[in-house]
Amino acid sequence: MTGRLTIAGLGPGDASLVTPEVSTALASATDVVGYAPYVARIAPRDGLTLHPSDNRMELQRAREALQLASEGRHVVVVSSGDPGVFAMASAVFEVFEASPQWRDLTIALLPGVTAMLAAAARIGAPLGHDFCAINLSDNLKPWPVIEKRLRLAAEADFAIAIYNPRSASRADGFQRALEILREAGLSERLVVFARAVSTVDEKIETVPLREARPEMADMRTLVIIGNSSTRRVGRWVYAPRQAG
Amino acid sequence: MTGRLTIAGLGPGDASLVTPEVSTALASATDVVGYAPYVARIAPRDGLTLHPSDNRMELQRAREALQLASEGRHVVVVSSGDPGVFAMASAVFEVFEASPQWRDLTIALLPGVTAMLAAAARIGAPLGHDFCAINLSDNLKPWPVIEKRLRLAAEADFAIAIYNPRSASRADGFQRALEILREAGLSERLVVFARAVSTVDEKIETVPLREARPEMADMRTLVIIGNSSTRRVGRWVYAPRQAG
Repeated sequence: MTGRLTIAGLGPGDASLVTPEVSTALASATDVVGYAPYVARIAPRDGLTLHPSDNRMELQRAREALQLASEGRHVVVVSSGDPGVFAMASAVFEVFEASPQWRDLTIALLPGVTAMLAAAARIGAPLGHDFCAINLSDNLKPWPVIEKRLRLAAEADFAIAIYNPRSASRADGFQRALEILREAGLSERLVVFARAVSTVDEKIETVPLREARPEMADMRTLVIIGNSSTRRVGRWVYAPRQAG
Repeated sequence: MTGRLTIAGLGPGDASLVTPEVSTALASATDVVGYAPYVARIAPRDGLTLHPSDNRMELQRAREALQLASEGRHVVVVSSGDPGVFAMASAVFEVFEASPQWRDLTIALLPGVTAMLAAAARIGAPLGHDFCAINLSDNLKPWPVIEKRLRLAAEADFAIAIYNPRSASRADGFQRALEILREAGLSERLVVFARAVSTVDEKIETVPLREARPEMADMRTLVIIGNSSTRRVGRWVYAPRQAG
């Protein structure tokens, strides 16, 4: 048997948002590797070994997955959302690049519904015009880079999807991000806080940026800042197709 | 029977990328409304009326869908990819906002795998770091706005996903976009041309920006410009998680 590595996105949480392609891959997997809360979404069965691991173990996890695949297993690395958006795919390629012994391994990536798409769908169409996605975690990039990108995104009048707005290790990062956007003149923009979309913990809240407070977000929240044309209609928030 | 309107994303093309949520909605629909090539992806059955329409008919199509739903039908508006990303959701809300008589209608949006996620998964992980998505169509926004956003996106060192790079009505827009990015110093960046991903017409090509030519893209192509750290490893292209 030839081993192979599949890097799959499980979508935001609900089983009805897992693509059939991903379900098929999981059905033939011998091993599932991932962050424990995502691995917990996979039903145990005979012939399948689950390998849950802690947060921030991305590189070790990628190495484990590549090693298992090289031994002839069919390994599925699972991420929430889409594996290529602030998830496991880049970490796997970092290890893969540094490890020529695995260069001939069969690898496939299976896309998924990333958090910003699920969040946008719940509230309307805030990503219906040009937008950007910024990971607010500064574990892997200097904070000044994040500040610069926020300022340029505001100047470009992009809607802004913010991933990982808050974590225990960066208590004030999101606070500072909100300040930067207010300084850039965006106080009246609509801000959507979408928490744990499609799970039992789902909560969606929309406020103008001037009323946004850091504690409205936690580790499970995706934040979308509207562009200059983003507006409410009834219970919905959307960006018109026309530029503002 | 109470009418309702569901705005659903069919993913990039292959049936294995349609979410179960969308399949369920289609199974109970009485009417499917959309651009003809997308409606053609829905299997005909008794009790289901298909309403295909031409390109650039977004507002008329949205009005037709809202009208049918208000008459008690269960209408599914279909888009390729995700309905909220440069697709039908914003057009529906534009009509909805202008039409108070439909304000009480039940509306739901079902996310899908948008083109840039499918394209990224085929080639590796070019969206693994901060990125933006720009619709190059200038039907609904002035070209100078697009130029400004391209320049700011380059300055922010975002990976850039370009939707609708070319259409018959804008022969030189994409050519100009490539020039702007070269002027911004991005000539060595990797550019991925991903055409018709997950269909029989799929074709993926990666070149440095200095070698990119407009005719490498057509109406079915999604283009991803890498950031300053994006690199090749074997047959793959990926953005490391670390900033460049």
